[in-house]
Amino acid sequence: MKIVLAQCNFTVGDFAGNCEKISAIYALHADSADAVVFSELALSGYYPSDLLTQPEFLAVQDLALVKLTQLTAGKRAALITGFIDRNLGSGKPLHNALCVLADGALVYRYHKRLLPTYNIFDEARHFEPGTLPGVFTLGGNRIGLAICEDLWNDQADLEYDDVPIKELSDAGIAMVLSINASPSNLGKYRERLARFQSTAARHQIAILSLNQVGGNDEIVFDGSSFYIDREGKLKAELAAFASDSATFEFDRDLNLVRFARSNELTKGKPATALGSALVSAPAFFHAQITLGLRDYARKCGFKQVVVGSSGGIDSALTIALAAHALGPENVLAVTMPSRYSSDGSVDDSVSLCSAYGVELRTAPIEAQFALAVADFERAHGEVPSPLTQQNIQARLRGRMLMEVTNHSGHLLLSTGNKSEMSVGYATLYGDMNGGLNLIGDLYKMDVYALSRWINETAGRELIPQIIIDKEPSAELAPGQKDSDALPIYPVLDAILRLAIEGPSLAPDEATDLRAFLSATPLSDVDRVLKLIARAEFKRRQAPPIIRCQRRAFGIGWRMPIAQAFVGSAAALLGRDY
Amino acid sequence: MKIVLAQCNFTVGDFAGNCEKISAIYALHADSADAVVFSELALSGYYPSDLLTQPEFLAVQDLALVKLTQLTAGKRAALITGFIDRNLGSGKPLHNALCVLADGALVYRYHKRLLPTYNIFDEARHFEPGTLPGVFTLGGNRIGLAICEDLWNDQADLEYDDVPIKELSDAGIAMVLSINASPSNLGKYRERLARFQSTAARHQIAILSLNQVGGNDEIVFDGSSFYIDREGKLKAELAAFASDSATFEFDRDLNLVRFARSNELTKGKPATALGSALVSAPAFFHAQITLGLRDYARKCGFKQVVVGSSGGIDSALTIALAAHALGPENVLAVTMPSRYSSDGSVDDSVSLCSAYGVELRTAPIEAQFALAVADFERAHGEVPSPLTQQNIQARLRGRMLMEVTNHSGHLLLSTGNKSEMSVGYATLYGDMNGGLNLIGDLYKMDVYALSRWINETAGRELIPQIIIDKEPSAELAPGQKDSDALPIYPVLDAILRLAIEGPSLAPDEATDLRAFLSATPLSDVDRVLKLIARAEFKRRQAPPIIRCQRRAFGIGWRMPIAQAFVGSAAALLGRDY
Repeated sequence: MKIVLAQCNFTVGDFAGNCEKISAIYALHADSADAVVFSELALSGYYPSDLLTQPEFLAVQDLALVKLTQLTAGKRAALITGFIDRNLGSGKPLHNALCVLADGALVYRYHKRLLPTYNIFDEARHFEPGTLPGVFTLGGNRIGLAICEDLWNDQADLEYDDVPIKELSDAGIAMVLSINASPSNLGKYRERLARFQSTAARHQIAILSLNQVGGNDEIVFDGSSFYIDREGKLKAELAAFASDSATFEFDRDLNLVRFARSNELTKGKPATALGSALVSAPAFFHAQITLGLRDYARKCGFKQVVVGSSGGIDSALTIALAAHALGPENVLAVTMPSRYSSDGSVDDSVSLCSAYGVELRTAPIEAQFALAVADFERAHGEVPSPLTQQNIQARLRGRMLMEVTNHSGHLLLSTGNKSEMSVGYATLYGDMNGGLNLIGDLYKMDVYALSRWINETAGRELIPQIIIDKEPSAELAPGQKDSDALPIYPVLDAILRLAIEGPSLAPDEATDLRAFLSATPLSDVDRVLKLIARAEFKRRQAPPIIRCQRRAFGIGWRMPIAQAFVGSAAALLGRDY
Repeated sequence: MKIVLAQCNFTVGDFAGNCEKISAIYALHADSADAVVFSELALSGYYPSDLLTQPEFLAVQDLALVKLTQLTAGKRAALITGFIDRNLGSGKPLHNALCVLADGALVYRYHKRLLPTYNIFDEARHFEPGTLPGVFTLGGNRIGLAICEDLWNDQADLEYDDVPIKELSDAGIAMVLSINASPSNLGKYRERLARFQSTAARHQIAILSLNQVGGNDEIVFDGSSFYIDREGKLKAELAAFASDSATFEFDRDLNLVRFARSNELTKGKPATALGSALVSAPAFFHAQITLGLRDYARKCGFKQVVVGSSGGIDSALTIALAAHALGPENVLAVTMPSRYSSDGSVDDSVSLCSAYGVELRTAPIEAQFALAVADFERAHGEVPSPLTQQNIQARLRGRMLMEVTNHSGHLLLSTGNKSEMSVGYATLYGDMNGGLNLIGDLYKMDVYALSRWINETAGRELIPQIIIDKEPSAELAPGQKDSDALPIYPVLDAILRLAIEGPSLAPDEATDLRAFLSATPLSDVDRVLKLIARAEFKRRQAPPIIRCQRRAFGIGWRMPIAQAFVGSAAALLGRDY
């Protein structure tokens, strides 16, 4: 039995494009394979969210599904794909479903049983869970079928009552084919493999798992589809962060006897790296953000980006990542010095941009700043407060960058890191401006680590060392330093990780962070917790951030604004609580 | 049997404040009533959303719950309140729950069975549904217990498998006590009463329903708690859009024999209007927005607001609403004329502000605009495009308004209406700036209707007629009119209602809208549908909008940005689809 897994990059709502992609790959294997498999909600893209509430969305999908069904007439290969099915019973009107199309007919359908509804997932909002196990006979073999979350419920701390993998195993199924839209984040690759290796071994069931790849708004899917045998051994995997496909050939006992990656989806380019090459934090961030930016730009129709270059590490890293992802010719940097800018702010921007071959333009804000301050005084009879003056500078710059967007159609990338976004040290309608934020899910220490990694990997100083070494400052007031108002970044980041990702951290990570913070005064921690709560109104208006960590700001972080609860340092640190 | 319903306004996460409010009301009735009842999630406020993922949030609630429990020791009255309970089984770790506290102990707990997860609701994200009916013996009577959604599942088109009201009725229960957090929107008051009147009659069960009141971010709860007897007759109700409480006295057969509203929550003020006085669209919008603004400002700690006054209807209405809600002394208006402003833009702002007694300051943008255009040319070697120049003006104004926020601590109200927000005719980081948008869920025609209503109700021209009559224009280019680029507003609004609220409209509403649009060219409708899809990136960064219609932009509208689906006019209008 031959099964082809097609690890594709789909666009949400692009039924024509997705259908064409599926058709082309299916055609290549229609006469030679027993099945060609596509990922969860492949036709519509994952995740359509409230587009699912539009009746026409379903109608258009159905037309595409009919086309795909017709393709299979007279062919050997079944086409297995994720799709949206209608629920004819009570409850939500739709199912997140899988269908088997064979010889011109829809011959089997399976409804996802476990619907993730936490973090970035909203599936219970749109779908009714299925109630029956997925079992289908393919090439004479009974195989199990599952969709993503269905196979994740197999641990001590059960999230759902049903355990589909156990049902399949109890029914004597030797292999389960799973289609996924499993997003990546730091540590996820290893976590996913480790979990399925133990699940496969526990239930003595092989797992053939197809994941999608690509960025969709904030979320990036890493692909890394895999086959794990019933002893729990990883026997084959597809590329990480790239489209890929492979043929899996099984003997009559469903042992894998041949595995071949093909390059039909990689346009003949050499095979890209596997996930195991990208497990270090900086390597992972780099791959995740690169793909996230490329796909956001492509799927939204942008070719070029613009970035404000302050001479600081955040904008430098953003420029570096954008130049890598899109090519330096598609990146425009603008330096906008003021009276408070250090000499380095322009010089270091120049070094950075020339190392990358990125065009840098200079647009001083001094005259506009002076006029804004004078106009404020004329209108309101007072000199604007120091904070007001700081924000005026940030907002002048934010506006000048948006001028490039409006005038030339560039996508503006905002440059706030996660530490800043957490405590609200970014100016709304100023440096927060942008269509996308590449580094908003990197804590400041991650920003440093990734910047150093870029230079090490390149074997030269792409990001000038002087930028990496300088003391962080917003440069909005004389002699201003970030450390004036905040704990030093290693301490701040540890507090933030505990506060933001606490419930999703592994117990030993939380323990390590608490140990690291054992000498930090509770008052410092309390102050940070207050800042986090008070900055919610800013985050609500932030551009999408490419998600990198377990818990990112954005669609997976839903906090009320007008609320009074602030956690206590003692409870967070587990000191006397 | 005497039951007191306390229709309170709680703040999310304010355990101390909420607990104090509950304690004070309970104390007044502890010796005279059989039960004092508080609304859904009263202790934590509704809806805490992802605060529920913080373990300390639960721990703090538990301390408050212990306090409340102790209050009941030796007292006649049970204290019945919504709270967050832990789930000891599999699934989500929490229950949305109700407890009965009596004589110093928690004597009964009920877990909400139907968890709304659609539109603005996210309950399946945090809670596991209960599985058992709620029945408790109070004052010798067996009464049913329910939480909000539990009683809404009783129509032809069942959203859930379970029908708790039917189970209670089948078990011979004569009355169900329901605690709610049921948000208001246009038409909801009548819909709610009509539905429960028919439900009560169908099942021959009386419904005593307590709703909370108040604004929480985008969502406003109208109160309007009620008692409907088992024949389906509305026998008693509490105030709309105001805190209120009332004692319900029942005979041994659970017939209501006495109903008395008290003014303990209204500080002796005369009783406020019932919902039936607020069913006209403008009256409803006025009440909803007034309460929404008051509570957002109070719960976030703002006393004063600032609004940009363009001389147009949107900013005029925003100023009028703010002056009514907070008092004119707490509203600051700023007019920021440019070379493109009509003579009326300042004059009409002056008339408006003087009619309301609102301070108006003038801050011309001409010099800054000229400098911005010149600086752009210096930096980029080109004159900024017409669109860029328009956006520069809007962003200068947006920044100048934020200066007031930063300098004086005012809350900035943005002024985009729903028609504008739908098609993206608002400038991100410009006129979209603000902490809250009062009219972002009013279509342009609603804006006119509410403005006229304000004048009619006042019996004088508070909003100058000239502002109501002038042709809508952004005044960002010479002679610019909204109708240059968009269908006229009655047509645009009908298209938007169908496109945005379509699936939630009543069938006859949709039919009426389609009839109204029967002569509209499909190409006009297609253009609007494209604009809606393309403006998603702007709406993602918009401030919270006070929700007024069934479907509002914000937390109840979850659309991907990088997506390709645009509905077709033919399908929307049902012409040939």
